[in-house]
Amino acid sequence: MSDTTAAPDMLSWSCPAPLRDRPRVVMGHGGGGALSAELVEQVVLPGLGGPAPAALTDSAVVELGGARLAFSTDSFVVRPLFFPGGSIGDLAVNGTVNDLAMSGARAAYLSCGLILEEGVEIDTVARVAEALGGAARAAGVRVVTGDTKVVESGHGDGVYINTSGIGVIPAGVDLRPERVVPGDVVLVSGAIGVHGVAIMSRRENLRFEVEIESDCAPLGGLVEAMLSVTPDLHVLRDPTRGGLAASLNEIAAASGCGVVVQERAVPVPPPVAGACAMLGLDPMYVANEGKLVAFVPREHADAVLAAMRAHPLGSGAAAIGEVVPEHPGMVVARTGLGGTRVVDLPMGEQLPRIC
Amino acid sequence: MSDTTAAPDMLSWSCPAPLRDRPRVVMGHGGGGALSAELVEQVVLPGLGGPAPAALTDSAVVELGGARLAFSTDSFVVRPLFFPGGSIGDLAVNGTVNDLAMSGARAAYLSCGLILEEGVEIDTVARVAEALGGAARAAGVRVVTGDTKVVESGHGDGVYINTSGIGVIPAGVDLRPERVVPGDVVLVSGAIGVHGVAIMSRRENLRFEVEIESDCAPLGGLVEAMLSVTPDLHVLRDPTRGGLAASLNEIAAASGCGVVVQERAVPVPPPVAGACAMLGLDPMYVANEGKLVAFVPREHADAVLAAMRAHPLGSGAAAIGEVVPEHPGMVVARTGLGGTRVVDLPMGEQLPRIC
Repeated sequence: MSDTTAAPDMLSWSCPAPLRDRPRVVMGHGGGGALSAELVEQVVLPGLGGPAPAALTDSAVVELGGARLAFSTDSFVVRPLFFPGGSIGDLAVNGTVNDLAMSGARAAYLSCGLILEEGVEIDTVARVAEALGGAARAAGVRVVTGDTKVVESGHGDGVYINTSGIGVIPAGVDLRPERVVPGDVVLVSGAIGVHGVAIMSRRENLRFEVEIESDCAPLGGLVEAMLSVTPDLHVLRDPTRGGLAASLNEIAAASGCGVVVQERAVPVPPPVAGACAMLGLDPMYVANEGKLVAFVPREHADAVLAAMRAHPLGSGAAAIGEVVPEHPGMVVARTGLGGTRVVDLPMGEQLPRIC
Repeated sequence: MSDTTAAPDMLSWSCPAPLRDRPRVVMGHGGGGALSAELVEQVVLPGLGGPAPAALTDSAVVELGGARLAFSTDSFVVRPLFFPGGSIGDLAVNGTVNDLAMSGARAAYLSCGLILEEGVEIDTVARVAEALGGAARAAGVRVVTGDTKVVESGHGDGVYINTSGIGVIPAGVDLRPERVVPGDVVLVSGAIGVHGVAIMSRRENLRFEVEIESDCAPLGGLVEAMLSVTPDLHVLRDPTRGGLAASLNEIAAASGCGVVVQERAVPVPPPVAGACAMLGLDPMYVANEGKLVAFVPREHADAVLAAMRAHPLGSGAAAIGEVVPEHPGMVVARTGLGGTRVVDLPMGEQLPRIC
């Protein structure tokens, strides 16, 4: 979901090879990790020639017509189009709704741009549109403008979708990583790694004892519940591509603080842990689609956590760590055995086309 | 640029075969003509299950935070990426800026979603980003939020771009086809058919005595100049996919009026006319990217035309026809020899992937 905007020194640390040494785009450039950041920071933003990197995030905050709006865009190229617990239509609505929610905005209106591949079944398009419509109703957002393009067979993959969204940010809400300070508590809204494992299990035709379904969901209501405790939350992120590790690293880099995570406190459902162990994946790096991570002032942390747990989409919420003045820009995990490991920014994405 | 929204009886007239008889998407479904309309009306909108068809147009008008905003989206899949007079980057900015302008809004902010194909040269991405940045500066709009996805080689075509945009609609401006009445004068801002012929000449490696360059341009300033004469313009359209013929048919259908065009008054540059004659194309159906068509109350038509001609992007403006109570929903052209022909809604697009 992210064009990451980690600080340049972070990028040179994560990826010493200058991008121009890679003459061509590789899959990892779309993975939401260090390669994605490099492409955006070194190629796209200099080309655009305009905004400061910090301005080109998941969700921009803009003033328009006297209102403070969140404005966000995402393209969806997930494979397969339908997977346990959801579809590209659900992702396309919830992905953008959630990006807006991470700015504190309740999504009001969505656009929908379809790129169809010649030869895709009309019934598939219909099923995707129905999924979009159902997800929009569930999220309380209206699709008000659209566009359809068709490309020749062999230049697409069935259906790609872009959605963009706008919503109003309530007065007093100012969510950005620069507000994070030592002492902040790190909360997650529930189990991590579920979406990525659900996609992969379908793609690779893996069978588990219990089918793992995507957690894809709209987070606007959960965020409203959290903000009703206090508008003074510091930052929210939905840890999609690159997983929780990428979100924590982005926030650490942008805030100039260190983040310490208690590994045992991170909720990973046993079936996800098992699947990850079998496949050599780290759940910290696996994409989520219906979860958020919040950096909250210590004095409000208990009340915000309670509000999250009282919401259906936050029943599995947990405090997983804190912000420290040490090791600025770096995320470390305390392991169950009392050790410490660095949780670094992933290079690419363990699973391509996860959203 | 359009998901056309012609009335259902129009569609059944243009395309007697029910869509469900075509099990798969064909290129024409992206052409902006009757097939596109059919897909949107019969598959996408019923799937979405929500808004009235008239609400799903190029540019939605929404109330948000107390302001009246235009909100629009477009995906760009033009081939080749660079062509005489422009590139996919210019199209991506001007296409969305112009959709907003057709609602009377000056574009304020754009989003940019890139879908890159694995293997595309990084330098190509850089050139596209530079074109985007240059076009945004020329149009006075800021790209504030973005997203990058990568798909495997063979599932894209170098670079696809989605842009969405928002802008404020000035008070008193209410542009929609339902406001068109008999007596309205039809104005175009200049020569038609230029963009389509420019793309095709590059794609097919055709050589003309004078190279024909795309007319791709941002129309916000021209629209401002027109609205400064009177906010009471009835409707504006940028005749992109499907050309002038598609725009006139959409307006005729939605207004329930007839449109009469004086064929000799429609500005077609001789090189475009020559290329079209050679290739068997009708310039009325060829895509434009920097032109608009306006339906204007008769009492304001001369003053609006003068304001258009005083603007650099309207120097070739002309009155080409009028609205009549006869043949509701139908567009007819008076030929140079005094005859009459029906200008119907194209089925698809003569040239696929024109934008």
